[in-house]
Amino acid sequence: MSDCIFCKIIAGELPSKKVFEDEQVVAFHDIQPASPIHVLIIPKKHIASLADAGEEDWNMIGQIQRVAAQIARELEVEESGYRVITNIGANAGQIVHHLHYHLMAGARLSPLGVHN
Amino acid sequence: MSDCIFCKIIAGELPSKKVFEDEQVVAFHDIQPASPIHVLIIPKKHIASLADAGEEDWNMIGQIQRVAAQIARELEVEESGYRVITNIGANAGQIVHHLHYHLMAGARLSPLGVHN
Repeated sequence: MSDCIFCKIIAGELPSKKVFEDEQVVAFHDIQPASPIHVLIIPKKHIASLADAGEEDWNMIGQIQRVAAQIARELEVEESGYRVITNIGANAGQIVHHLHYHLMAGARLSPLGVHN
Repeated sequence: MSDCIFCKIIAGELPSKKVFEDEQVVAFHDIQPASPIHVLIIPKKHIASLADAGEEDWNMIGQIQRVAAQIARELEVEESGYRVITNIGANAGQIVHHLHYHLMAGARLSPLGVHN
């Protein structure tokens, strides 16, 4: 996907502060963090959102959850707590249309709810 | 886990409004919804949180993501958008210590961030 900012990060065409990479998954610090720790975990395969994943993707998406737990451990926020989120579409405020899970930590996070 | 409210729901010892069930996963409406649609998707296996999942669990946790996408489609919020969240520990506000993913939809959801 030539116009996808995350595909460019994966390809090394845009810089990122990577915290994890394997054959299927990359994780890097969000450039506009909304919490003291805010990491994005994404598949190397371009999938627009969770709604666009197919049968061949679920195990890899399970591995994204594993990577989230691993990064939380490495960044030493497992004890204090963290949140893992994926946004799909407009009501969730999805901005980049390449599947990504947010790992947020380092402070008490906002309660779950709707926009004021 | 005899004291776990979600294990009791799985066992049918507490009522719930189920929207999905298979051999490994159950989903039901949150009794205290924080959005117009608020469904919890949980493994039948008692796992305290994502931080406590093991190698044998990641494919099942990938299937939880599949179930989230499927329920969103069935509840007709795929177009308008939805969010999938799991909270781990105190900073995230985890209340029930049985792994669960929130599926939230039906309104514009709050921005990601820290507690005021």
